[in-house]
Amino acid sequence: MPINTALIDNPKSDRVRHVADLASRRTRERTGRFLIEGPQSVREAVRWRPDVVQDLYVEVTESVRGARPISLTVQAIEDESQDSTIYVHHVTGDVMRRISKDAQGIAAVGNAAAMRTRPADVRLKPGDLVAAFWQVRDPGNAGTVIRAADAAGCAAVIFVDDCVDRLNPKVIRSTAGSLFHIPVLAMGTDEFFAFCHDRGAEVWAADVYGTADRKPESLPDALAGRGGEPGRPTAVLFGNEARGLDAAELVRTDRIVSIPIYGKAESLNLGTSAAIMLMSMAMSSHAGTIWAV
Amino acid sequence: MPINTALIDNPKSDRVRHVADLASRRTRERTGRFLIEGPQSVREAVRWRPDVVQDLYVEVTESVRGARPISLTVQAIEDESQDSTIYVHHVTGDVMRRISKDAQGIAAVGNAAAMRTRPADVRLKPGDLVAAFWQVRDPGNAGTVIRAADAAGCAAVIFVDDCVDRLNPKVIRSTAGSLFHIPVLAMGTDEFFAFCHDRGAEVWAADVYGTADRKPESLPDALAGRGGEPGRPTAVLFGNEARGLDAAELVRTDRIVSIPIYGKAESLNLGTSAAIMLMSMAMSSHAGTIWAV
Repeated sequence: MPINTALIDNPKSDRVRHVADLASRRTRERTGRFLIEGPQSVREAVRWRPDVVQDLYVEVTESVRGARPISLTVQAIEDESQDSTIYVHHVTGDVMRRISKDAQGIAAVGNAAAMRTRPADVRLKPGDLVAAFWQVRDPGNAGTVIRAADAAGCAAVIFVDDCVDRLNPKVIRSTAGSLFHIPVLAMGTDEFFAFCHDRGAEVWAADVYGTADRKPESLPDALAGRGGEPGRPTAVLFGNEARGLDAAELVRTDRIVSIPIYGKAESLNLGTSAAIMLMSMAMSSHAGTIWAV
Repeated sequence: MPINTALIDNPKSDRVRHVADLASRRTRERTGRFLIEGPQSVREAVRWRPDVVQDLYVEVTESVRGARPISLTVQAIEDESQDSTIYVHHVTGDVMRRISKDAQGIAAVGNAAAMRTRPADVRLKPGDLVAAFWQVRDPGNAGTVIRAADAAGCAAVIFVDDCVDRLNPKVIRSTAGSLFHIPVLAMGTDEFFAFCHDRGAEVWAADVYGTADRKPESLPDALAGRGGEPGRPTAVLFGNEARGLDAAELVRTDRIVSIPIYGKAESLNLGTSAAIMLMSMAMSSHAGTIWAV
């Protein structure tokens, strides 16, 4: 798309205020748009989901050749966006600071509806992995686990029950672009278990305590014999960062699996636990590991 | 030790200022003391390294039964400290806020010399794991990797070359108590390689790129056949969070190992990489895994 040559230089203009207001969940829900901040997130959005990106805001500075993007990184993202229908706007430093403190020279506005994946559109093959998070509340954690699920090659991420909004700008920043690599869905607890059942997926709970009559099995034991032929798809359900999973969820899962702690550490945080469990499962499948316990 | 019954209620007193000043590295080096903040870190220090803890500062509040610690958590830590030579001081909320914004009612002053582990005191058995970090600069990362090394049952953590001070209060908070579970040493690069050589330890570099003539091997491949009899001790060297390892370090290592990325994520951060690699190595040893690649 052509670049809007008119420089946006008024931080108080309605357009600028409306973009900045996308930091608020209410505004996102009212307008159906969301904010993408910083070179990494914006580049991944432009590269993988140009259909989602509506407007690109690029900070420019005066040079002998007229207004130029403030860095080669930002310039490269603007160039890449030209293959698509993304509308590019040049803005001053004041305007960019008003749009976001975390933009580092580039921000984008996305279409929330285009980011929505319908559960019916998610099909699972044998061996596929799904990462599910119940009541994850911290934006940084939510972003970190989406990034870990992406690295492990998960087919989808599901935020179950009452979780942080996946289009929260801090969540998006923390995913380091992974939000635009894999489908991230949100659904209720019953809907999640029905989703897994309908697709023949085994549900693992990642939990340290288990229930009165079901102690967790250790991750290496649970991975035993996962090598070779890919088995049923597996969904791993992780609990809230503070409270973990309730018995009500645990009893509905097929297996309860915990990461062994070999030292004196009491626990691992949610992001670390998700990375270890999802990557171990992915490595054991891909590498065809045979765990001899 | 008896609890000092005189309530410390003057935030401007020299004693209080001296404790608060331990947030500065210069003050820690000048005084040979360091600050431990918050119930989790202080409890682990009192429980595992009472020899290190000199003074305990406990926030109290007036009750019908006189001044009492502000919470049962804090009370329990004070009680546990009574088996040792730790000197307990009761302070007001104003004083505690002056000591640290992150104390949540309890802080302690430790003896830096008592925390120091001499390399000569570290002996390694077959199968032992050492986690080493070259030029780790971010306090949060440093704490996270110490916690991951603890969870993986590492025999020691080594900060190599120019790293953040392991007694930085934010590092200590981020370790969630693990700093008091395992020895954490600091040494130069040459000293590190000599340390490993003297103990017959194999040195792995955790690196995505490798060198021109040594591409990294994939983690599951590197773990192949690690099950069964414990082999040589292994030290894993991780690079700086931004730049990774330089060729100068890579060429001195026995193996270069990278974590496979199965999705579209570009990379994993240092804390996540360390947790995945160290826990995978620990699980494959402990569970006697045979990786059939």
